[in-house]
Amino acid sequence: MTKMLDETEARDLMSAGKIGRLGCIYDGEPYVVPVNYVFEDMSIYSHSLPGRKIEALRAHPRACLQVDEIQDDLNWRSVIAYGNFEEIRVPTERRTILGKLLERFPLLTPVESRMVEDAAAPDSIVFRIVVDRITGVEEQ
Amino acid sequence: MTKMLDETEARDLMSAGKIGRLGCIYDGEPYVVPVNYVFEDMSIYSHSLPGRKIEALRAHPRACLQVDEIQDDLNWRSVIAYGNFEEIRVPTERRTILGKLLERFPLLTPVESRMVEDAAAPDSIVFRIVVDRITGVEEQ
Repeated sequence: MTKMLDETEARDLMSAGKIGRLGCIYDGEPYVVPVNYVFEDMSIYSHSLPGRKIEALRAHPRACLQVDEIQDDLNWRSVIAYGNFEEIRVPTERRTILGKLLERFPLLTPVESRMVEDAAAPDSIVFRIVVDRITGVEEQ
Repeated sequence: MTKMLDETEARDLMSAGKIGRLGCIYDGEPYVVPVNYVFEDMSIYSHSLPGRKIEALRAHPRACLQVDEIQDDLNWRSVIAYGNFEEIRVPTERRTILGKLLERFPLLTPVESRMVEDAAAPDSIVFRIVVDRITGVEEQ
């Protein structure tokens, strides 16, 4: 039976997740890519090297993040959050966010550790999706 | 180290997967949803009840399917296939495709079994994404 999650359940699932699939639009086509993220205060924080995803988000800032917990085909929960892409450029803010990501994803060391120490380095993009809508469904 | 998969590796990963994240565009916004699928002869086959995904695909047939195998943050492979959405309306074709889906996803019984027996029933949508581009990356 499929039921909608209420907003608290949807937020909790988004907070618990570590890997989401980021949806964006590149040149009129949908584009989906797995990302590590931290969800806090209705923002999704992540970082990336330059590439297709960043080009897509800069050109078309509307994005979504889909996160799920799938046990099997008949027992799963999925949540999707929509929002607008914003780059974080202020070094102190970059450092704080990279610190949170590093804490949650210790395997990302040492590249990201170096980035935390030198958060002003321009080659990595730190960004947030400012979420304005979140919905979820559960099948069980 | 990140490397591009060649097309054979990308196709193999797409064939091996069972759950993908379908990306489409709904009202100018990206939309991502997990789906069960079968990949065969450069087409992605799936089915759905009516809803947001089907509305999106009918309005904007360009879609993608992203599939990954993630061991941890530093060991993963991800593939994305792009193509155009087509509904399968011919009852014999619907039956064949639902049969393949049912074989691969036995847990989907009994709803889909009934659909195979009565594949002309209009309430379920059987569709394919006719793939024209597939790329993949590997991190290890």
